[in-house]
Amino acid sequence: MDVFEILNLNELALGLSNLSMFPYFDMAHYIISVMSLREQPGVLTVSQLSPLACWFSSMLYCFGGAVLSALMMADAPVAPLSNTTNLLIASLMWYLVFYCPLDAVYSLASVWPIRLVLTGMKEVTRTWKVVGGVTQAGRKYKDGLFVMIAVGWAKGAGGGLISNFEQLVRGIWKPETNELLKMSYPTKVTLLGSVLFSLQQCRFLPMQTHHLIFIYTIFIVTNKMRMMIMGSSSYPFSSLESVLYKTLFVRPLTFSPLIDSTQGSDQTLKNSSISEQKSNNTDQRNPEEAKNAKKKD
Amino acid sequence: MDVFEILNLNELALGLSNLSMFPYFDMAHYIISVMSLREQPGVLTVSQLSPLACWFSSMLYCFGGAVLSALMMADAPVAPLSNTTNLLIASLMWYLVFYCPLDAVYSLASVWPIRLVLTGMKEVTRTWKVVGGVTQAGRKYKDGLFVMIAVGWAKGAGGGLISNFEQLVRGIWKPETNELLKMSYPTKVTLLGSVLFSLQQCRFLPMQTHHLIFIYTIFIVTNKMRMMIMGSSSYPFSSLESVLYKTLFVRPLTFSPLIDSTQGSDQTLKNSSISEQKSNNTDQRNPEEAKNAKKKD
Amino acid sequence: MDVFEILNLNELALGLSNLSMFPYFDMAHYIISVMSLREQPGVLTVSQLSPLACWFSSMLYCFGGAVLSALMMADAPVAPLSNTTNLLIASLMWYLVFYCPLDAVYSLASVWPIRLVLTGMKEVTRTWKVVGGVTQAGRKYKDGLFVMIAVGWAKGAGGGLISNFEQLVRGIWKPETNELLKMSYPTKVTLLGSVLFSLQQCRFLPMQTHHLIFIYTIFIVTNKMRMMIMGSSSYPFSSLESVLYKTLFVRPLTFSPLIDSTQGSDQTLKNSSISEQKSNNTDQRNPEEAKNAKKKD
Repeated sequence: MDVFEILNLNELALGLSNLSMFPYFDMAHYIISVMSLREQPGVLTVSQLSPLACWFSSMLYCFGGAVLSALMMADAPVAPLSNTTNLLIASLMWYLVFYCPLDAVYSLASVWPIRLVLTGMKEVTRTWKVVGGVTQAGRKYKDGLFVMIAVGWAKGAGGGLISNFEQLVRGIWKPETNELLKMSYPTKVTLLGSVLFSLQQCRFLPMQTHHLIFIYTIFIVTNKMRMMIMGSSSYPFSSLESVLYKTLFVRPLTFSPLIDSTQGSDQTLKNSSISEQKSNNTDQRNPEEAKNAKKKD
Repeated sequence: MDVFEILNLNELALGLSNLSMFPYFDMAHYIISVMSLREQPGVLTVSQLSPLACWFSSMLYCFGGAVLSALMMADAPVAPLSNTTNLLIASLMWYLVFYCPLDAVYSLASVWPIRLVLTGMKEVTRTWKVVGGVTQAGRKYKDGLFVMIAVGWAKGAGGGLISNFEQLVRGIWKPETNELLKMSYPTKVTLLGSVLFSLQQCRFLPMQTHHLIFIYTIFIVTNKMRMMIMGSSSYPFSSLESVLYKTLFVRPLTFSPLIDSTQGSDQTLKNSSISEQKSNNTDQRNPEEAKNAKKKD
Repeated sequence: MDVFEILNLNELALGLSNLSMFPYFDMAHYIISVMSLREQPGVLTVSQLSPLACWFSSMLYCFGGAVLSALMMADAPVAPLSNTTNLLIASLMWYLVFYCPLDAVYSLASVWPIRLVLTGMKEVTRTWKVVGGVTQAGRKYKDGLFVMIAVGWAKGAGGGLISNFEQLVRGIWKPETNELLKMSYPTKVTLLGSVLFSLQQCRFLPMQTHHLIFIYTIFIVTNKMRMMIMGSSSYPFSSLESVLYKTLFVRPLTFSPLIDSTQGSDQTLKNSSISEQKSNNTDQRNPEEAKNAKKKD
């Protein structure tokens, strides 16, 4: 792209696209994934009661995307286990984060600047997983745009998409919510990436692959760091999302009742609670509030 | 078959078996499926809160059979997504039924004669799906009668068989019931069709394929229309079902106690409640009553 | 191995490894599996309300390992259905155990010496399933040690590992527990076997296959019989398990708090309750007590 040549970024973009995720970026992904698992309620108890269940959950956090995309493409979901080196590294990260003497590793990695860097490196691996999924699907289903979007999304955000079943491993079952009903930031940004890369692979988006990799990676890394530094959880495209939503998906007020057969609230109350819920949904920081708002409906 | 020649139905049967489901019959299937999803409790709320979850549920209603049979045969469950044309048509039906201005499409399709015709067309697609599943399994497992029955059943009634997991997408979880514990009419009639076509493919049933297609299609379409016109839900073979059940599956009153380890009811009470439940089970119109009867046990 | 030659056991070991499981050992496996399903709470009710759901559960008990390992290796999970002979035998066992006039079969098989022999024969099939799974995985993933362990484990203990979903077929859902959180004896001993056979296949354990088959089979059969005769459920390696656990998986008392974000108990209380739970966990006879101890945490 001319912009890239003007800014002398072409070589940088090529260099980034040829970067290997193994071993440092993968290690960062594993350690941040296991740390975020550890910070879930009830996990420390599970780690004491059943190290095996804790290990299995951690592996789902680390390799969930590979497992889900394998299931979708009828490849063996056990294939990630065959990559013994990565599995051993991920297991080592799990062991150090949960059971290290003096809890050294978790404490060290929680130090804010270190966590910021590791999180940035984890975000870089997201691009690689999305591109890998899109390419893999594209090889099997030429020009299958929706398959490529689905598989790229699964590979990049699989751990979140299978969260209900990962929680089941730990004895937790929360059917009232899932990543489709209420999408978290990582899942949204992975979907965005998957759509972009699929459009690019199907030649709807006139861009070179390494340029798109560069732009997308810079975007997700800087955005994640901004969110961590500012302590905010606002998604850059939330206003666009709101506009799209209000244009395409608001039910008309006429004809068939807006009211579900299980409810008795009147139409005005429902409209106001829906717009209230939508503005709540864009604020990822208040899952509890959004949950209460949902209950009002 | 001589009967067919006598009644000059052979050419009609051949014509029916060569009929293409695309695009009109498929569209009827999609629109009726999405409408029946919409009439489930709580779905209108989901359609407002998360159009994506609503879309995903609709796709499971439309393509659930293809997804389930693919999972069973170790084919890619994501394959239905690769049929872009059908996916786009189904998505269009979803959008129009849920979000059409003035709610025009749903209101129009709900007009009774139109709904009757569309439902009849949907029933025709059932035959195609069962035959497709049975044939597909037959290619991979020659003379594998039970595989053919299972895959034909899954392909024709998959949407119902995976209902627990489709509801999970919408945040609903009702583990106390499923299509095996309490089979709905579509699932029963699909199982019947799958058994017939599997027996015919394995040459246990001496009939030509297009004759069986003709008879089965006429049966399910007329029966469904009769049920809609009469407002009844009685299954034509319910008496036969009752007789089979009482002959084969009633527990003897001797030896080991009839009582489950969780119950304290005496033997006479249990026998009477079981026969009561069985007569309730054959009446599909009273799921609540059958549920209460089940609770008494 | 020299020991084997000295004790003239080599021919016996070879003979055992060439033994065919069909039909007597398989029949013993089916009948004991269906009997143990029947003894679950609520199953007799299901057998009356829905013979189909009862049959499906029984098939999951009988073939659960084959189904789970097929899912893991991206083979068709419906493949066990294609083995018509075994399926018919298993279905016959199901019918006789649940619906035999005078309840003859269940009563006869429950006679203690007969049940002891049948259970011993079922344990023999465990070895064959583990070896089968390990070998199958080894063919596809040469030297993939963890894949071989996982698939061997799934094939030998699959019925237990998928217990949450088998219960769902019967309308029961108990997410708070699963075989990873609280491993039952059969699952533990199968994992042990899978590890041993995988190490032996990857040449880490210098032993011939038929010798290992012999030793492992003798161990699991005699241990199971001892447990049935003594009425005990203590696992021979529970002390070793305790030592390993205390060495590797006890959390250090320093740095980050030991307390989950959902609890307020102080550190001493938690340590004492954890050691109490661990000693409870090794006693398989007291699932209720362990469950109460778990609730205290």
